[in-house]
This record gives sequence, structure tokens and C-alpha cells, in this order.
Amino acid sequence: MIETPYLLFLGDAPDALAAKVAQGIKDWRPHNAVGQFRMEGCKADMRLPDMTLEEARAAGARTLVIGVANRGGVISAAWKKVLVQALEEGFDLASGLHNLLRDEPDLVAVAQATGRQLHDVRVPSVQYPIANGVKRSGKRCLAVGTDCSVGKMYTALCMDREMKARGLKSSFRATGQTGILITGDGVPLDAVIADFMAGSVEWLTPDNDADHWDMIEGQGSLFHVSYSGVTMALIHGGQPDALVVCHEPTREHMRGLPGYRLPTLEQVRDMALALAKVANPACQVIGYAINTQHMSEDEAQAYLADVEARLGLPATDPYRYGADKLVDALAAI
Amino acid sequence: MIETPYLLFLGDAPDALAAKVAQGIKDWRPHNAVGQFRMEGCKADMRLPDMTLEEARAAGARTLVIGVANRGGVISAAWKKVLVQALEEGFDLASGLHNLLRDEPDLVAVAQATGRQLHDVRVPSVQYPIANGVKRSGKRCLAVGTDCSVGKMYTALCMDREMKARGLKSSFRATGQTGILITGDGVPLDAVIADFMAGSVEWLTPDNDADHWDMIEGQGSLFHVSYSGVTMALIHGGQPDALVVCHEPTREHMRGLPGYRLPTLEQVRDMALALAKVANPACQVIGYAINTQHMSEDEAQAYLADVEARLGLPATDPYRYGADKLVDALAAI
Repeated sequence: MIETPYLLFLGDAPDALAAKVAQGIKDWRPHNAVGQFRMEGCKADMRLPDMTLEEARAAGARTLVIGVANRGGVISAAWKKVLVQALEEGFDLASGLHNLLRDEPDLVAVAQATGRQLHDVRVPSVQYPIANGVKRSGKRCLAVGTDCSVGKMYTALCMDREMKARGLKSSFRATGQTGILITGDGVPLDAVIADFMAGSVEWLTPDNDADHWDMIEGQGSLFHVSYSGVTMALIHGGQPDALVVCHEPTREHMRGLPGYRLPTLEQVRDMALALAKVANPACQVIGYAINTQHMSEDEAQAYLADVEARLGLPATDPYRYGADKLVDALAAI
Repeated sequence: MIETPYLLFLGDAPDALAAKVAQGIKDWRPHNAVGQFRMEGCKADMRLPDMTLEEARAAGARTLVIGVANRGGVISAAWKKVLVQALEEGFDLASGLHNLLRDEPDLVAVAQATGRQLHDVRVPSVQYPIANGVKRSGKRCLAVGTDCSVGKMYTALCMDREMKARGLKSSFRATGQTGILITGDGVPLDAVIADFMAGSVEWLTPDNDADHWDMIEGQGSLFHVSYSGVTMALIHGGQPDALVVCHEPTREHMRGLPGYRLPTLEQVRDMALALAKVANPACQVIGYAINTQHMSEDEAQAYLADVEARLGLPATDPYRYGADKLVDALAAI
């Protein structure tokens, strides 16, 4: 568990896209971000107060989160200076970088000397159990996709926000690095040892109130041959009561697999549901979340109307139009 | 790659069952076992020549394979003495024990001093790639199961043996500890990091002659919620041309999951085939391998006849009756 609130470290981000993690935190957990720390040449701006480390500590920040991708895969000397100083001033550090904080001897030494934590969310910090398949109390919704990176995390976050806005009980359950940094907790599922994948998802979504929903971030796709095993573990470990099928209609082939076409929504619906029923016979597909970012307003509306007519269930772009329809469908279960 | 042939270390095995790994090597790769090494009180016997370390070296043995499960999960002092001596006499060591050889400082020190290898087949020794899904040359057959431990490894081994007996090109591809020790190579799939599972299976079953078959050892089951992700990675990483569905008819519930009934052969056939076609649209289910060890001759024959009549494909117990029918079916592809 990463202590909140955060100071968002934007470093010398070459553009706004490099600060995607910081943007995610700002968009989804604004109360977790007291300010931003920018170095000379930083081209990203979260429109948060620029703060020194001292100012951020005074404002209550507990953890410096690296909200930016590093260049060249290494933590630069310029960054290092700030990170060391942050530890000395009482911050924990959290990072989703490939270059692990724990692999930097100077950071480890300072963290030990100051009693601070280094959180590398890319690697598991928990010894997960093997899944036992025992039915858990509470309800769970899992986002499954036609492909990787079609909006599964945003769908779960949008639904979680809408649930909370209605005063309903909901927890976003992160299964990837960005999601973990956004919410401060979760399972870096793609880095878990094979035998413990489903168990880590059970651990992430434990017994809960009967009217509580876990909104589980999906990963990969049953139709993506590189990562389908991870998706499978989510479907069986998550025991979902509800599935939302996510899709990006302009994608020409599976991400990273030029030889593979995307499956249809019908294929994903049928395959995911049949497999989900192994762990939870009551599971239902409740709707479709379409990522329309590359479509005009007219195209998006026409596409959504077509999906609803064809498949007989609510379809929306929850980021563009809100998650009302999907949350309505959950409430009907 | 573990150097062959082996001396099989049976230690102080309390019974025959404890020497299951040694039995597997003896049954499936008898030419790899020059002899056995037994300590006082050993209750297992592979009916191989009892040899001292010196005699085994003289007979050509290169690796001492721990063919027995250790008591209490630790490598005892009595074992340690033999293992150290073996390293000193020029043997590599290979083990599938939970207690890793590499975690024993004295073994590590002697291995370094003598230039010998310690093979812990329970943990990966290779940095596997992420699967790329590119079609590979050669053919592949994967054993899939209704449950864990229903005979998937034995089915692949039986088919490999029958292929070789007919002079056909075949390689058994091990994906678990016992299989790796039997054949000297493979991927310990349940210990691979999630993102690299399918890639490790691609690595294990590379391009080959057009008429060469990989007989891939299956793991878990699509219907076993603890391990289905591993099965999924085998189906997509393996790109099988042929699937054999394996089943043990007397099993009352899924292994380790008292609340879960076994799927039908039809369910496994349909689900595995639909998923396999994502990676290889030409994939076919070619037959059924039934583990009849708990059935009388009459029961077994009746069951197999029923499966063939119901499902319209060859069914046999390849360990009891040979793999002819299954290999005939492969040849027809």
C-alpha cells in the first residue's frame, strides 16, 4: 500500500504523453495529488501547483510518485538528485519504471538510512496464494477486451466513479502498473509467477459486503496470443458476476501482432462468458464499452447504436459519455 | 540442457512412490539411466545396476539426478554428503526439489570450485521472450485435460514413443519438472512470469522440419480455476495443429477444488478448439486419451467404446493399450 497523498514528479518530461501516469492520477484520484514537481525543460503540466519538496511535505504529501516515463530506460543523474533529496525530506518513492528503484544502490542506502519505502509497482511485493476457487461474498465486475489497450482500465475507473457518485459501494481493483499508482494498491499481474496468477486476483478481490462491487481492471485479451493466459487468470480468479466487453473499433490488427485480426464483440462475449461461468455460473455480460477516441461524434453515436441494436445490451464510451448505462445494467443484476 | 546419461539418486526413499521421478526416467528414457545410487534404508528399486559414484562415472554417467522426493522439504546431511562427493567426482547435479540446490551454500561452493553445474529444474534458467504469434514450421500436438493430473504427460510421452517406433520425427516437449528431468530439457511453465508464459512455449517448440511433430506436455485445464492461465498460454504459445483431450473418468471433483465438478469431454473439446484456432485456424481435436488406471479391463473397454461412439474420434488409454490410434489420427492430418 502506497501512502497518499502524492507529489507528482514530472521530471524533464519531453511531452505530455510521457507523463501518462501522472495524468491518470490527476484525472482519477485528484485528491491524491497535492502538487507537481517539474525540472528544467519539463514539457508536461498537470495544472497542479508547482511545489518544492519542502512545500509538498508541508502540504501533507507522503509519497513522491514518478509520474513520467524515463528516457533511455535509466534513472538519470538529474532525477537521482531529486529522488535522494525526497527520501531525505521524508518522502517514500513510488515508481512503475522498468529501471527499478531497488536496483539503485544509492537510493536503497538512503531509503534504509532514512527509514523510507521504495515502491516498485512493476514487481509483486506479496507472496500470493494459489487460487482456491471458493465463492466469495460481494460482487465483482471485470472488463474484458477484444485486444490489449482498448480501454479496460478506463472503463473500470469510469464505472467506479459513477458507482461512488451514486453513493454505491465500489472499489477499483488495479492489475497493472498505472492502475496501481493511480489507486495506491493492486497486483502487477503481468509480473506474477504463472502458478499464482489466479490466486493473486482472489487476493485482490476478497470477501466484501453483499452490495459492494469490485471494478476489476482487465489485462490482455483471450484473443491476444501473447497475454491470453493473464486474461484467463483474471476471469477465473476474479469470479466476476458481470463482464463488460471493451473494444476500439478502428484497430486494424491485434496490438503487436500484425498477423492477427481482432475478434468480434460476439466472439469475446461468448468465449469470456463460457469461461467465466466455470468460476461463477451466474456471470452475465452486462454491456459494451467502446473506445471512440478516434471517431467523430456522428461515427461514435452510430457505432454505439449499431452495437446496441445488434447485441441487445447497453453500449457506450464511458470516458466520453459517462458510465451511467453500464452502472444501470449492474444495478439490474 | 542437462547432460546425459544419468545416475539416478534414490537416496533413502521411504517407498517406491517417493522415487516417482526416477521411475519416469527409467520408464521413458531407459538409455539415459546407467544405474541407481541407493543409500541405507532405501525402499525404492528401479531394477537398474546399483553403482557407486566411481562406477557410474566409469560407465559414462554425466549427471546425478535426484530421482526422489526429500523428506520434510530439506536436503538432509546424509544426502548432502553424497551430493558434494558427486560434484567432486565430476557429476553435474539435477533436481526438481522445492529445496533448491542453488540455495545450499556448500553445494554452490563445491560446484564453483569443480566447475560443475547445478540444475534446479523447478525454476526457469532462460530469459524467455514475449510471444509473437508468428506461424512456425513443423507440427505440434498438445495434450489438454478435463483436470490436472489426468495423464497429459504420459499421453505426450506415449505418442512420442510410438512416433519414434514408427520412424517418424517427434520430440517430447516437457513443460513440468518431472518431464524436464525425464527428457533433460524443457520449460518449468508454472514458474514462468505471467507475461512470458506463451513466449516460453514458443521458445520450447521452435521452427522444425515440415514432418516433425512436437508432442507438448499439457498443464492444468481450462476448467481448473487455479491453473487455467497456464493452460491458455500453452494453447496459444504452442500453436497446436492437433489436440488430444485427456480425462480420468473416476475423478469426483477437480483436483484440489472440492466445489468444482469436472467438465465433459465435449466441453473441453469445444472450448480448447475454439481458443486454439485463434493461434492456428487449422487445429483439430484428433482423439481422446483416457486414464483407466482405476477401471477394470471390462470397464475400461466399455468406457473407451462409449467415448468413440459418442464423440466420433479415436479413444484409448495410451499407457495401457498403446498410442497407435492417436498416432494414426495424427498421420491423417
